[in-house]
Amino acid sequence: MSDLRETVIEADPRLPIIRMTRDFAAAPERVFRAHTDPELFARWVGPDGMSTRIERWDATTGGSWRYVSTQDGAEFGFYGCFHEVRPDRIVQTFTFEGEPDGVALETLWFDDLGGGRTRLRAQSLVDSFEDRDAWLRSGMEVGVEQGYAKLERMLADGAAR
Amino acid sequence: MSDLRETVIEADPRLPIIRMTRDFAAAPERVFRAHTDPELFARWVGPDGMSTRIERWDATTGGSWRYVSTQDGAEFGFYGCFHEVRPDRIVQTFTFEGEPDGVALETLWFDDLGGGRTRLRAQSLVDSFEDRDAWLRSGMEVGVEQGYAKLERMLADGAAR
Repeated sequence: MSDLRETVIEADPRLPIIRMTRDFAAAPERVFRAHTDPELFARWVGPDGMSTRIERWDATTGGSWRYVSTQDGAEFGFYGCFHEVRPDRIVQTFTFEGEPDGVALETLWFDDLGGGRTRLRAQSLVDSFEDRDAWLRSGMEVGVEQGYAKLERMLADGAAR
Repeated sequence: MSDLRETVIEADPRLPIIRMTRDFAAAPERVFRAHTDPELFARWVGPDGMSTRIERWDATTGGSWRYVSTQDGAEFGFYGCFHEVRPDRIVQTFTFEGEPDGVALETLWFDDLGGGRTRLRAQSLVDSFEDRDAWLRSGMEVGVEQGYAKLERMLADGAAR
């Protein structure tokens, strides 16, 4: 019933980068809004069974963010700053507070596929292959896949119009 | 008369990173302050003959910055956000507005060598070797070396106490 692919998650062979690609049946401005509106973002980010509380959020160039995710009573904090927010691209930093010395530079591109469809490309750059590979082994793909599935359903239900 | 080394600038063989190391005859808190106080920072950053005007500056975790440097009548804008600012480390993003799609994740460490001396280690991470090597070929080391020489003289003259 759908030609949408699931999320493709790839480790770059030469660079300490994880790349993720997923198509959504919604126009780029709606997918973008689901990443910049804090109430929308909190509804889809993370794996099933995790709830997210936004503590700080200014999705503009030079702004910053922090949120706390809760699962089975445990809390996980994340924070970063928005280097650049423009309609076709968001560049931001990302730290999991459980590993306070780690930091990733994330870039999201919202590619217009036409016909009300968007290819979301996300890239996460860190400063060592060890950190990148530990992240891949952490089970992050479950959270990514389940989060994007929630986003897909939200968009199908008319969110972010 | 001095055992201080000049700046060591190295390209990582396996990662798209430039690393710079330089020792200063001042305590870590003074070198840190010369990087976070906008008036002090503007006095030393960049090559000789370039003057810098701070347009935005909030050197705190989640803050942001922008400055414009002028040389021979030409203006060059730079901007970024401060991911984390703590006494021993600053993590920030960096974009030269002449190449608006490029962005580096910069980390500065202020290592206490004891005896009122500091080793400044700076790392600049980008997402391709091509961008990293273009940056190295751009003559950036002249600006780095001349800027740090100004900072060294400022610290010797008692700045940032």
